[in-house]
Amino acid sequence: MKALLASTLSSIVPADPSIGSAIQAHLDDLTKPQGSLGRLEELAMRYCVARGEVRPRLGGKRIYCFAGDHGVAAEKVSAFPPAVTPQMVHNIVAGGAAVSVLSRHVGADLVVVDIGVDAEFAAAPGLRLVKVRRGTRNLAVGPALTREEATQALETGIGLAFEAAEAGVTMLGTGEMGIANTTPSTAMFAAYLGCDPATVVGRGTGVDAAGLAHKTDVVRRALAVNAGQLGDALGVLAALGGLEIAGISGLILGAAARRIPVVVDGFISCAGALAAMRLCPAAADYLFFAHLSQERGHRHVLEALKVRPILDLDMRLGEGTGAALAMSVLEGAMKVYGGMATFSSAGVSGRDAEDKG
Amino acid sequence: MKALLASTLSSIVPADPSIGSAIQAHLDDLTKPQGSLGRLEELAMRYCVARGEVRPRLGGKRIYCFAGDHGVAAEKVSAFPPAVTPQMVHNIVAGGAAVSVLSRHVGADLVVVDIGVDAEFAAAPGLRLVKVRRGTRNLAVGPALTREEATQALETGIGLAFEAAEAGVTMLGTGEMGIANTTPSTAMFAAYLGCDPATVVGRGTGVDAAGLAHKTDVVRRALAVNAGQLGDALGVLAALGGLEIAGISGLILGAAARRIPVVVDGFISCAGALAAMRLCPAAADYLFFAHLSQERGHRHVLEALKVRPILDLDMRLGEGTGAALAMSVLEGAMKVYGGMATFSSAGVSGRDAEDKG
Repeated sequence: MKALLASTLSSIVPADPSIGSAIQAHLDDLTKPQGSLGRLEELAMRYCVARGEVRPRLGGKRIYCFAGDHGVAAEKVSAFPPAVTPQMVHNIVAGGAAVSVLSRHVGADLVVVDIGVDAEFAAAPGLRLVKVRRGTRNLAVGPALTREEATQALETGIGLAFEAAEAGVTMLGTGEMGIANTTPSTAMFAAYLGCDPATVVGRGTGVDAAGLAHKTDVVRRALAVNAGQLGDALGVLAALGGLEIAGISGLILGAAARRIPVVVDGFISCAGALAAMRLCPAAADYLFFAHLSQERGHRHVLEALKVRPILDLDMRLGEGTGAALAMSVLEGAMKVYGGMATFSSAGVSGRDAEDKG
Repeated sequence: MKALLASTLSSIVPADPSIGSAIQAHLDDLTKPQGSLGRLEELAMRYCVARGEVRPRLGGKRIYCFAGDHGVAAEKVSAFPPAVTPQMVHNIVAGGAAVSVLSRHVGADLVVVDIGVDAEFAAAPGLRLVKVRRGTRNLAVGPALTREEATQALETGIGLAFEAAEAGVTMLGTGEMGIANTTPSTAMFAAYLGCDPATVVGRGTGVDAAGLAHKTDVVRRALAVNAGQLGDALGVLAALGGLEIAGISGLILGAAARRIPVVVDGFISCAGALAAMRLCPAAADYLFFAHLSQERGHRHVLEALKVRPILDLDMRLGEGTGAALAMSVLEGAMKVYGGMATFSSAGVSGRDAEDKG
């Protein structure tokens, strides 16, 4: 393990819930019936605890969309050709992709990260060129990445989180672009959660029933051929994962080290989040799960993680599209927390029982 | 029935789904797998059909928060005293309420409408003084409003929708403030849906179990004492409703007449929406339901209306708080629809099957 990854893992501390009572007291002093904002109050509580401050300052929001290609695309597990990955990188950078539009809509910076696309890009604003290698190897026939490559991708993500912290970002979102990347994600879930691949495999961007059976078979072969690599968290990430997935894991670890809450997008981002939590369980305290993806296995994964996502909009696009919308809800919750009047300041009466008390 | 209400009802036409295929063709040409944005695509489709345009222009967003008091508060059906209604009107206008913060967050104008508060207000920016009367009568002992008063409140709402249309608003949201107003809403649901009050009664802003039984009893008395008034949609609204609820109904009817989509907030706004739909079923084509309220009966009501709300955040505050957040999702859906690149414009390859086709 390299120095940056090791030092980052050792610097992550669990969020300290002891400030929760002060946060709850403020929530209950706001001009609304106690608890009536439901999950917005829960989100504000978790955000404050993650930041470690009763009244945290809200800074910028940033989404990192990690892009990478996958050797397993050779197994025909996706309805789209691998050429779409670099095409979509250009489209996102140019502002025409769904995540481009939704990032603008919610006021989040969007940074596309070439961490592993099988193509070369010219420098462009909003595009980071930090390629580890041009795509992964085919995980159905051997490890997708060496442990060194996976570590380099993790450290790349960590570095981007640290840059965001330096820039005053106080909320991060994850996203990804990579043709065929539901297959490595599915394999990672099966390995980390110890579940049958059939329970987490799904149609990705649109394979049919026969394609689904084939995809399940590919995942089974990947688990079998890489069985000797799956004994630790990093081994699973390297053997079954992807460069964009490892980048997401690293971003989460770096963010947790800097106490920056991260909104995890959908199915593939969840695989990155799970790897981060297996590398460092305390990282979970800094995570918010954006939405329930329509990708079939996502519900199973979220239930296994015992988390309830913020949104449920039948989305299954990735890129960071769910994260963008959920970040706006989380930011709204924090604006409510920080911007509402209190009963005393606004001259509003409390409950009858309290008036009499 | 007065002239404005009658002419408005007669001018509402069902949304014409015949442009749906052109809208779907555009959705499918955007740089994403078909259908992968899930409900965002469904929301964009419904919005366009409601507007009657394949490529509608997005204008402003506005939330009307209608405020009114309720004679039934004398039955002690709320945990808060009636004095809170005017206090909260001041708080909303001053920018300190939850809906104030969330409206700013999503970029929606917020207009508070005194349509029936039992207090007088000085003129203030963002406050409309269009009071019909100072609160309703106690619906547990007789009709809350006369048919004439209810009609006046409906026409007030219609007028506000027309003003919004003139101002270039292309998305409206509903909200309300009125101590005790879950009780009239519950009575309206029981009457319109023909269900037992016990299936739709809930804790409002926080009554306990004994309070809940009492509230159910109050609703039963209201239904019994007003039985002779409940034979038509306007009769139910007048006898069991409230001025802010009728204002919401009117806003929806006026918006439907001008083909402006309306995002309906929570439980109480839903009562107004149901009254509007009973007065004119075609109004349903212009409605989006913001969120599933934690108020117990809301799920039952939404299921009866066969609608799936946009958000599920355990909120139960009203004011328009759920509408504000959901309007941002709907607007995001329309920005995606109008702002994403197409496959051909962005040079992105389609599915393998199409490439071969």
